[in-house]
Amino acid sequence: MINSANDRFERGLALLRTISGTQHPAVLDSLADIAPDLARYTVEFGYGDILSRPGLSLPLRQLATVAALAALGNAAPQLRFHIDGALNVGWTREEIVETLIHVCVYAGFPASLNALTVARQAFEARPDAAAAPATTPRPDGDRYARGEATLAAVDGHAGEQVLASLRDIAPDLGRYIIEFSFGDIYSRPGLDLKSREIATVAMCTALGTVTPQLKVHIHGLLNVGGTETEVVEVITQMAGYAGFPAALNAIAAAREVFADRRADQEDVS
Amino acid sequence: MINSANDRFERGLALLRTISGTQHPAVLDSLADIAPDLARYTVEFGYGDILSRPGLSLPLRQLATVAALAALGNAAPQLRFHIDGALNVGWTREEIVETLIHVCVYAGFPASLNALTVARQAFEARPDAAAAPATTPRPDGDRYARGEATLAAVDGHAGEQVLASLRDIAPDLGRYIIEFSFGDIYSRPGLDLKSREIATVAMCTALGTVTPQLKVHIHGLLNVGGTETEVVEVITQMAGYAGFPAALNAIAAAREVFADRRADQEDVS
Amino acid sequence: MINSANDRFERGLALLRTISGTQHPAVLDSLADIAPDLARYTVEFGYGDILSRPGLSLPLRQLATVAALAALGNAAPQLRFHIDGALNVGWTREEIVETLIHVCVYAGFPASLNALTVARQAFEARPDAAAAPATTPRPDGDRYARGEATLAAVDGHAGEQVLASLRDIAPDLGRYIIEFSFGDIYSRPGLDLKSREIATVAMCTALGTVTPQLKVHIHGLLNVGGTETEVVEVITQMAGYAGFPAALNAIAAAREVFADRRADQEDVS
Repeated sequence: MINSANDRFERGLALLRTISGTQHPAVLDSLADIAPDLARYTVEFGYGDILSRPGLSLPLRQLATVAALAALGNAAPQLRFHIDGALNVGWTREEIVETLIHVCVYAGFPASLNALTVARQAFEARPDAAAAPATTPRPDGDRYARGEATLAAVDGHAGEQVLASLRDIAPDLGRYIIEFSFGDIYSRPGLDLKSREIATVAMCTALGTVTPQLKVHIHGLLNVGGTETEVVEVITQMAGYAGFPAALNAIAAAREVFADRRADQEDVS
Repeated sequence: MINSANDRFERGLALLRTISGTQHPAVLDSLADIAPDLARYTVEFGYGDILSRPGLSLPLRQLATVAALAALGNAAPQLRFHIDGALNVGWTREEIVETLIHVCVYAGFPASLNALTVARQAFEARPDAAAAPATTPRPDGDRYARGEATLAAVDGHAGEQVLASLRDIAPDLGRYIIEFSFGDIYSRPGLDLKSREIATVAMCTALGTVTPQLKVHIHGLLNVGGTETEVVEVITQMAGYAGFPAALNAIAAAREVFADRRADQEDVS
Repeated sequence: MINSANDRFERGLALLRTISGTQHPAVLDSLADIAPDLARYTVEFGYGDILSRPGLSLPLRQLATVAALAALGNAAPQLRFHIDGALNVGWTREEIVETLIHVCVYAGFPASLNALTVARQAFEARPDAAAAPATTPRPDGDRYARGEATLAAVDGHAGEQVLASLRDIAPDLGRYIIEFSFGDIYSRPGLDLKSREIATVAMCTALGTVTPQLKVHIHGLLNVGGTETEVVEVITQMAGYAGFPAALNAIAAAREVFADRRADQEDVS
């Protein structure tokens, strides 16, 4: 990448146009009266530096942003913008709803519900997102067995350890993780496991309060086909949405996970 | 509990009707156009699994939810719903206001003030909550002495250690904890200490940023008559309002507290 | 300070009048119908105890509050009030905008953007804040070199260590910290480094999720001319805006930083 100031701005503006779906993105004008320099930084740094980076696809970047802003729960205007952006880079209305349902596992039902209120506004303004939702048929079979299988695919041994550690004190919380989080939510067909784990790493990074689970899901993302580069990219991207400290602390968690996995591989070989 | 899907839904719907005070709770319809499955999960998991659990009374569950949503400060629609719910399961307007005043100790004055704005809207819509507030008479006597006594009742030695640790660096912060947090707020007559500690454990779990204080107040809840089961229940309930990671990390704190108390009892015996 | 109840209230009310710029601050009336005691605590504790303390100037106290509320992102009414208050105690519109731009480094662009929306409302209501903003000319020279120099002034060796630790895993994140955080933002002329570090310590305390960075910037505040007393004061003040646990945990971080600096001085001498 060429990094002169003009190149950064031009590259950022081109990407901002793609994501916003308009030639004249509102962020530029909306700050002109109060903080025009911040508009420039948004374009140069946010879009020209960060979102233009290789290593993570633009659709997955938008999904990460939508999930993180939904989990934080305090940035409705930006969530609205990035839900539109997610539609503009190829996600369907159904996949966005699926992502916002996934949010409830990591940030609670209120975060999910309030993000869906924002999504409804975004969808209603777009004829291309107006389709009526289908109820996913209640899946056949045992929720616990289905959850166990999905948990094993995502978390491997780490999930088992969490459940074992709950057995003496809150075994039902462990059961809910299997039945609800993995049996009901993660097993839904509307979003693949890699997308779910991108969203989860983004949320855990942005929240900044859940380091143990962030590590579990960095493992999880790598287990379901994500790369170390994608882990670093989704975390780096969160610098723009939750601040640099959130990104720095998540990178420290990623360093530990990467080292653990290398040590495990050496043990095997 | 029987756990077939239909039983979970029916049990959840019955409880949702009790809490919402209506036969046709709005959450079902409000998601029909965008995420009907999330409405189903809310009933089955949130109400049928979690809030239906034994081990913590329904009024204390509602109090925990109100306190946690007020402390998070980013879920006004749900806070409004659960303030109504708290009135519906037996709390008075005065007790809810008292809980929201208590919130300022753990999440700051803005969280308290904004939650009271939501409470005002809830109260104004209900004739049964329209009574004018009384000012609590300013208590007689020394704030510091009153605060010390209440702190000792709640925290025992843990409170003393916090104050001792502040003496070299911020002694006035320690003084404010005694005078304001415990002398002014905890000593108010409008809410008993057990209810205050249920609210406090719920807030500290949901915030996810205050593990040392969460441990102090798990001790506190047990000191003022709460049970280990109630601790586990209020933490487990937060999975639905702040996400599973928040609940898991608080359970880890509870495990340490429970073990410490058992070790102390063995030392004594 | 004299601490009888009446003195605390009178002292607090006088300061609240100064900050609010009115003889009849709205907070008193706005709580009369629902929680009059909380209005009294706000005056007695918030203004009479905390904001009246010596050791940190009133303008820096207001700047800390504005930054913290902007970073939390969930207290728009109070942010509006304290932006007005910052104008009332001497800050210019341009300095407040500069502070809110600074926020994006620690809490992300959405927090900055939403706080600027609140600031716009505050400015539009006041003729004395109606001036049109100037774009700061893009500075000459190399962003990286400028950022390195500013980082060295603020963080000394701590900044270098952060960058070194990123080299193996996310070197570009380190580059952005130099180019963007320090080269673009910290190097802007509209706010001095001490004010930036007061704002940063306030934000990191209130967020409660970023202890490593809180320590770096307690060092930073001391490096650019702040005193240990000012560190303790800005942290103590956050008890009122983010709760006592946030303040207590930040004091624990400050204790470590103060001890490290004393140990380093002894090594040198």
